Amino acid sequence: MAYSALLTDLYQLTMLAGYFEKGMHETPAVFDLFYRTPPFEGGYAVFAGLEPALHYLSSLRFTDDDLFYLKGLKLFKPDFLDYLEGFRFRGRVTALAEGSVAFPLGPLLTVEASMAQAQLVETALLNIINFQTLVATKAARIVTMAGVGEVVEFGLRRAQGPDGGLSEVRGAFIGGVGSTSNVLAGKTLGIPVKGTHAHSWIMAFPDELSAFRAYAEVFPDGSVLLVDTYDTLESGMPNAVTVAGELRDRGHRLAGVRLDSGDLSYLSREARRMLDEAGFPDVRILASNELDEYIIRSIQENGGRVDIYGVGTRLATCQGEGGGALGGVYKLVRFGDTPKLKVTSDISKSTIPDRKRLLRAVGVDGKFLMDIMCRLDEDLEPGDVVFDPTNPARNKPIPIGARLVDVRSVVMEDGVISAPLPSLDELADRCREQLSRLPEGVLRLDNPHRYKVSVSRRLNDLRTQLIDEVRRGYPHAVVRN
Amino acid sequence: MAYSALLTDLYQLTMLAGYFEKGMHETPAVFDLFYRTPPFEGGYAVFAGLEPALHYLSSLRFTDDDLFYLKGLKLFKPDFLDYLEGFRFRGRVTALAEGSVAFPLGPLLTVEASMAQAQLVETALLNIINFQTLVATKAARIVTMAGVGEVVEFGLRRAQGPDGGLSEVRGAFIGGVGSTSNVLAGKTLGIPVKGTHAHSWIMAFPDELSAFRAYAEVFPDGSVLLVDTYDTLESGMPNAVTVAGELRDRGHRLAGVRLDSGDLSYLSREARRMLDEAGFPDVRILASNELDEYIIRSIQENGGRVDIYGVGTRLATCQGEGGGALGGVYKLVRFGDTPKLKVTSDISKSTIPDRKRLLRAVGVDGKFLMDIMCRLDEDLEPGDVVFDPTNPARNKPIPIGARLVDVRSVVMEDGVISAPLPSLDELADRCREQLSRLPEGVLRLDNPHRYKVSVSRRLNDLRTQLIDEVRRGYPHAVVRN
Repeated sequence: MAYSALLTDLYQLTMLAGYFEKGMHETPAVFDLFYRTPPFEGGYAVFAGLEPALHYLSSLRFTDDDLFYLKGLKLFKPDFLDYLEGFRFRGRVTALAEGSVAFPLGPLLTVEASMAQAQLVETALLNIINFQTLVATKAARIVTMAGVGEVVEFGLRRAQGPDGGLSEVRGAFIGGVGSTSNVLAGKTLGIPVKGTHAHSWIMAFPDELSAFRAYAEVFPDGSVLLVDTYDTLESGMPNAVTVAGELRDRGHRLAGVRLDSGDLSYLSREARRMLDEAGFPDVRILASNELDEYIIRSIQENGGRVDIYGVGTRLATCQGEGGGALGGVYKLVRFGDTPKLKVTSDISKSTIPDRKRLLRAVGVDGKFLMDIMCRLDEDLEPGDVVFDPTNPARNKPIPIGARLVDVRSVVMEDGVISAPLPSLDELADRCREQLSRLPEGVLRLDNPHRYKVSVSRRLNDLRTQLIDEVRRGYPHAVVRN
Repeated sequence: MAYSALLTDLYQLTMLAGYFEKGMHETPAVFDLFYRTPPFEGGYAVFAGLEPALHYLSSLRFTDDDLFYLKGLKLFKPDFLDYLEGFRFRGRVTALAEGSVAFPLGPLLTVEASMAQAQLVETALLNIINFQTLVATKAARIVTMAGVGEVVEFGLRRAQGPDGGLSEVRGAFIGGVGSTSNVLAGKTLGIPVKGTHAHSWIMAFPDELSAFRAYAEVFPDGSVLLVDTYDTLESGMPNAVTVAGELRDRGHRLAGVRLDSGDLSYLSREARRMLDEAGFPDVRILASNELDEYIIRSIQENGGRVDIYGVGTRLATCQGEGGGALGGVYKLVRFGDTPKLKVTSDISKSTIPDRKRLLRAVGVDGKFLMDIMCRLDEDLEPGDVVFDPTNPARNKPIPIGARLVDVRSVVMEDGVISAPLPSLDELADRCREQLSRLPEGVLRLDNPHRYKVSVSRRLNDLRTQLIDEVRRGYPHAVVRN
C-alpha cells in the first residue's frame, strides 16, 4: 500500500516549518509511542501495525503534487517547501515484535530521528498502530472466548469504508481470526476466505427446500446453509437435514448450517441434536448476529454447540467498554541531549523520560511475570527493586529466578527496514504463543489481573529529578498529558 | 478512488455462481437499502456516500488479476469465471439526494438490475453508505449542538487506517464540519485544513513563553497557541496574552488559544475574560479533548465561551449510544414479476415489498411533516389515510394542506450516472438546509421526536397479502430480519 506524506495533521507541518525556521529541525529527538489504558477494560493489548508503519516511514516523500498543494495553502515559505522536496525519514525505530502482547506505559515503538522527521510522522504512526492494535486486541479477546471454536470475520459492510475493511482484517488476523468473508482482503493479504449465502438466496426460490437443494447442487461439498429465513427448528433445520442426506447419497457432504437469529445457545444445541440424530455429526454449526466476546462466552456458558463464530460489526467497529479507539500517544522523551517529560500534579500521568530499554521478566515456566523499563545503559537482575510508575511509593523486587529479556529490538536504521518482516501467519502464531504465556487472569473479561509494568530505580530517579525541575519553573503545573 | 470488484463478501460470489448455474442470474431483481433504527438513539440520519457508491457501480469490473485469484480458490467453474470477465453493472439506481435527512424504513437507495448484478453489489454499497451516513449523522449532531460555534475535525490518529480517515472526513464535512486537520483529506476532497501545535513544540523550548514567541514569529497571523502544557490559567493564558500584545505591536494578530484539558467550560470563560480584559476580543478560543455532542452541550449549558470545537476520536469512531455502526441493510423486494418480503411473527420487522415511491409531506412553512411509501403507480393526496408500518392498526391521514414531494430520483440508468454530482460544499449546504426543516424535537439528543414514516393503503394491503401467503407456507415463521 502506498502512503502519502500528507497523511498527517496540519500542525505537524506547521511545527516542522517552525523548527526549520528556528534552525531546530536537525536537533536529534526521541519519541515513545505507548498507551495508558488497555482497550475494552481488558488486561493487555496485542501490538499490531508495525509492518505498514515501517513501509510508511521508508517510503515517505513529498510528491510535486503534494508540494503544489502545500504551496497553495499560503502558509509556508519557499525555502521550507524546497526543504520538504528532499525530505526523507532517516531515523531509527525500536519496537516490539508485531503480534506481541503489550502493556500500559511500556513503549511499543520508539523513534529516534531529527526533530523534523520524528515529529512529522506522529499522526500516521498513531493512525496505523492505534487501529491495528485495537482490532488485533479485539480479535484476540474474541478468539480467546471462542476457545476451540473457529472465528471468521464478517465485518466489511460495517467497516470505515473499503480500506478501513482491509486494515481491520489484517489486525483481526494477527489477533487470531482465521478467515474472512472479505474477498479483497483475502486476495490482498493472502488470508483464507469463507462464506455462506444470504436470505435473498432463499427468497429467490419458491421455497426453502428448493433453495437449499439448488445451493448444494452448485457447491456439493462446501455449502453452509442459512437456516433461519422462516423458522430455524421447524423449517430450516429439517430442510437442511434432508439436503444433507441427499448430498450423502450422492457421495458428498454438507459442510454446515448457519444460525443468524434467536437464542443461539439453545438453537445450536437443538441443531446439533437434530444433526447428530440424523447421522451428521460432522456437519458444523456456524453462528452469527452481533457476536462479540461477551455473547460468545454466554453462548458457551449456556451449553451452546457452536463450531464457528461469524463476527462482524462488533469486531469491525471495535465496540466494547472503553472501546472504539486505542488511546495511543506519541510523546517527546528526549530533545538534543536533554531527557524530557510532561509533568503534572498527578505523577501517574507524567510521561517517562529518555531512551529506555523495555525488559520482560519471564518465569521458569515461560510465563510472563512483569515488564520493566530501565535506562538504556542499565542492566537489571532478579532481586533489584523496581517502582510502580503510577505510584513510585510502591516498589517490589524483580522475582528471583526470572529471566530478563529485551522485548524490543531495532527494526529500522537510517530509514531502512533492518529486521525481517514475518508473514501474517507468523504474526498470528506469535500472538497465539504470547497469549498462552500471560499470567492467569490477564485474559479474563471482567476485572482482569493487572499485569505489572515497573521502572528501574535509576529511571525513577531521573523522572523524579525532572519533575522537580519543571515544578520549580511552573509551580502550579497541573497538566494532563 | 478506484474500487475493486473483490470488495465484497465471498457469499455474494458463491450466490452469483449459483444463480448463474441455475439460469437465474438474468432475472430482474429489486433491492432496497434502508435502516431500521436511527444511530446514536437519535431521530434521523443524514444520507451520505451516494457519489462514491455510484462511482463503485459504474467502474465495477473484474481484472485479470481478480479472476486469477478467484480461479485459485477452486470454488468456481470455468464458464462462471468467463462470465465474470465481461461482468458490468448495468442497472438503475433510485436514491435520495446525498446530504438529505433520512428516516427508518424508507429506502435510501433502490437497485433495479439483473439478480446477479443487484446481489453482487450489496456488500460494497453497505460498506460505503453505512459508514458515510453514520459519520455524516454524527457530525450533524455535533454541529447542531455547537450552534454558532465552528467545528474542526481532528480524528485521523484514531480512524480505521489511512483511508478510513479519508472516508470519515468526507462524511463529516457533509454533516457540517467545516474543516479538518487531515492534510491528505484537505487535498483529496478540497476541504479547508486547520491546525494548532502540539505539546512537543512547547517541550522543545526552554520555557512556554519562548515556545509561544517562536511559533508566533513563524505564523504571525495564523497562530493558535496551546495553553495547557503547564497550567492553563497561571501560565498558558498569561503567556498567550503577552504574545498577543507583542504581535499587535508588530501589526499582527494572534488567531486563537487552544484548551485541551480540564474543565473546558470554566477555562473558556476565564480565558475569554483574560483576553477581553487585555483588549483581545477577537482572539478565538478553540477547545478539544474527547469532545462529542453531549460534552459540547454541557460546555454551553455551563456558560462556556468556546468559538471552535476540535472533534477527533468520538467523531472518527462514531461513538455514542447505539453507535459505532449504522445497521443499514439491503433487502430483496422484487424478483422477476413477484414482489418479495421477509416475514416474521413480528410485523414491525417484516420488510416492505416491491418497488415503491418515497414521498415527503411538506407543510406550508416548508417543514417536513411525514414520509410515506406507496406503490410505484400510485398517487397520494392530503387526507389519504396512511399506515404505520410497524403497527398497521395505527393509521392517520396525510395532513391537509401538505405538499407531497418525491424525495428520490433516478441517479443511474443502465449503469451510467445520470444525475449531476454536486460538490461537497453543495452537499453540506443541502444537509444544513434539510436539518433546518425538521420538526422541532427531531434534532433533540434525549428522547427525540420520532418522525413518522408511513405506508399507503395499497402498499399496506400488498404487504398483508404477502405475509399471509408466506404464513400459509411456513405456519411457524418467526424469523427476524
